[in-house]
Amino acid sequence: MANVFLPKGMRDLLPQQMIHRQRVIGAIQQVFTRHGFEPLETPAMERIETLTGKYGDEGDKLIFKVLSRGEGGKEGLVDQALRYDLTVPLARVIAMNPQLSLPFKRSQIQPVWRADRPQKGRFREFYQCDVDVVGAPCGLADAECIAVVHDALLALGFTDFTIRLNHRAWLRALAVAVGAADREVELIVAIDKLDKAGREGVGRDLLARGFLPDQVQRLWALLDGASLPGAEQADAELDRVEALALGLGVSPARLRRDRSLARGLDYYTGPVFETVLTDGAVGSVSGGGRYDGLIGMFSGRDIPAVGVSLGLERLLVLMEERGMLAASTTSTQVWVTVFDEACEPAALQAVTAFRQAGVPAEISLTEGKLGKQLKAADKRGVRWVVIAGPDEVAAGQVKLRDLRDGQDLALPLADAVARVVAGG
Amino acid sequence: MANVFLPKGMRDLLPQQMIHRQRVIGAIQQVFTRHGFEPLETPAMERIETLTGKYGDEGDKLIFKVLSRGEGGKEGLVDQALRYDLTVPLARVIAMNPQLSLPFKRSQIQPVWRADRPQKGRFREFYQCDVDVVGAPCGLADAECIAVVHDALLALGFTDFTIRLNHRAWLRALAVAVGAADREVELIVAIDKLDKAGREGVGRDLLARGFLPDQVQRLWALLDGASLPGAEQADAELDRVEALALGLGVSPARLRRDRSLARGLDYYTGPVFETVLTDGAVGSVSGGGRYDGLIGMFSGRDIPAVGVSLGLERLLVLMEERGMLAASTTSTQVWVTVFDEACEPAALQAVTAFRQAGVPAEISLTEGKLGKQLKAADKRGVRWVVIAGPDEVAAGQVKLRDLRDGQDLALPLADAVARVVAGG
Repeated sequence: MANVFLPKGMRDLLPQQMIHRQRVIGAIQQVFTRHGFEPLETPAMERIETLTGKYGDEGDKLIFKVLSRGEGGKEGLVDQALRYDLTVPLARVIAMNPQLSLPFKRSQIQPVWRADRPQKGRFREFYQCDVDVVGAPCGLADAECIAVVHDALLALGFTDFTIRLNHRAWLRALAVAVGAADREVELIVAIDKLDKAGREGVGRDLLARGFLPDQVQRLWALLDGASLPGAEQADAELDRVEALALGLGVSPARLRRDRSLARGLDYYTGPVFETVLTDGAVGSVSGGGRYDGLIGMFSGRDIPAVGVSLGLERLLVLMEERGMLAASTTSTQVWVTVFDEACEPAALQAVTAFRQAGVPAEISLTEGKLGKQLKAADKRGVRWVVIAGPDEVAAGQVKLRDLRDGQDLALPLADAVARVVAGG
Repeated sequence: MANVFLPKGMRDLLPQQMIHRQRVIGAIQQVFTRHGFEPLETPAMERIETLTGKYGDEGDKLIFKVLSRGEGGKEGLVDQALRYDLTVPLARVIAMNPQLSLPFKRSQIQPVWRADRPQKGRFREFYQCDVDVVGAPCGLADAECIAVVHDALLALGFTDFTIRLNHRAWLRALAVAVGAADREVELIVAIDKLDKAGREGVGRDLLARGFLPDQVQRLWALLDGASLPGAEQADAELDRVEALALGLGVSPARLRRDRSLARGLDYYTGPVFETVLTDGAVGSVSGGGRYDGLIGMFSGRDIPAVGVSLGLERLLVLMEERGMLAASTTSTQVWVTVFDEACEPAALQAVTAFRQAGVPAEISLTEGKLGKQLKAADKRGVRWVVIAGPDEVAAGQVKLRDLRDGQDLALPLADAVARVVAGG
């Protein structure tokens, strides 16, 4: 290999991976469409002013900046940058397209770029997979976001998951109730770790941060308690969202109120939710919530919004680990061999007949012994091989070999096509 | 609207456009798969050295450069750039993945970025839609590229197209035969304009460039003639490619040898082809050819290759102009209204039943009078509206309204679903 490589954190998606990705993205897209979310794509590049200041100081450092090109000596100016997420672009689209009817339900599946330190399984280019409802108040819109995640995970074959549900106002009331209204963020960050660290670990952490033992005790009591002063509206909203989600077909066994769910700090204002697999092996596979202050930032209007993101890259890893992806490494079902030049017309006719019947079919592109061609077909993972040698051509037939059991059948081409279409 | 806009040459693809794009790309992808081309995606960013020097001086200027980010004070270094086409990345993939079996048939549908001067209908981000066969000599691989374009255009609904076919060696022999071996490029550039300028215009151009009247006359004679000294192998290769393409189902009426087809200058080495619509209104909608010198550039090996690109953006414009895109502006088929809070459970049940039957369905997200909800459904372009008011709920039915004719039907929910699934 010559001196070629990719920039740090970049990767190719080769056919074996792409075939799985296309199926998974296709299945998710189909559920999004079924739920009435309409597709949007935004350009890879935004103006730098559109992006900076939206993701915190740390986020700002991870934005990829692009040199502008163009006439008039403007080359070298850094005035555009690569998309960092799909939410800020959505806010910009809403501001630039006042003709869009609200509520606007949109789905968006596109790559984003972040100059994070690359790690195993973490790349600087990765797909986000978002649905959002813009312009609808708390209630059915939030339930729709929960239902679409529920149905998308089912469509992918997941059954053992729980959607955790909480409310940002509940967390705010909690901070007030333990006498730490001014330290809400710190408290939430600590609580967010309960899943992993347990009460002992989180309690130690809070004490180390200067919280009093009494505050920590009150915290546990409130988390266990039935109600919380100041959280009445939040509780009522969650009751309603939960009831609506169940009405939209979400399984009650898969929806759980969880008062320790914090789910980010910055922009959520209402219900928050995330999905975890019941075996608990990994973090969340989806997360979202209501963020009524964000979408209007470019419009100068107050626009309520709620959305959820599916962790596509993590889902793909999980599906591979669990053997949920089809074993096939190719979409091609039939490999037509070329016996010799005299038999070539029969091979052309055969591959064309399969394709016209909608069956993905290949024809050997390089001359070579039949054994070599069969080996190539097998290596590719194709199930069916077609052989049209002099005997078959003379008899007006083809030989159809099932590589799963090595059985041969001699039959007219049309019958071979029908057999493969019928799945054997 | 606040002060928000997009960088020059960038655009959003709103749902009405996306719905058409997804259908068109889906149809093309399906044909690519049927023909055994396997999907590949490469990252948006390549190392700058991978891209520079590959697209000529003019091309180099149009490459978008990205500032590197990262630890160790390396910020500000310009060492990566955005993908400019899909061919150079393919060459890099081949070099970096010696495990890939050749011949390798790959399809790739991804955006590329070029800092061209934006014009009406021309953007700095646009999709390319390529198939290539890497590692197969001239012959069947070239015919496969012609056949896949042929079948993709048919799948999109085009019937009035011609695939023009020529050979780079034929053009070289032509230059030799008119005594201009050292001015081959100039001659090809001039000939390439025959379609638009005619012989009169091209002849004038050649004379102005210092070609002799005798050379111009010889040129016309050779273009009209049956054979050309030195072009025997090119003719034989074209004969074979043409015969193979017909064997793969390409209509003879849609394939035309055209000795004036030049198709780019730089890297083609064998057959070249492009597709024009018969009404001649626009330029080509696809183009490609054999380029045996390019793919090996990073590998240090000689690797034959042939490929073709579909002009996705141009095809979309043409399909819109010709009314070939479905009139519907939404994928959503059913809009479920919410009569009042008491009837909400029936509405939730209805929208869920449609979705579970695979029918894209919406539910009104904001409260409001029924008339307003119906208006929203109509504006969205949905065909069916479901109303579940107190009377319907009491009767265990829903009202199904066909917005195409305004007819109402009262029937059980399951029957309404069955009716919509059956298409009315």
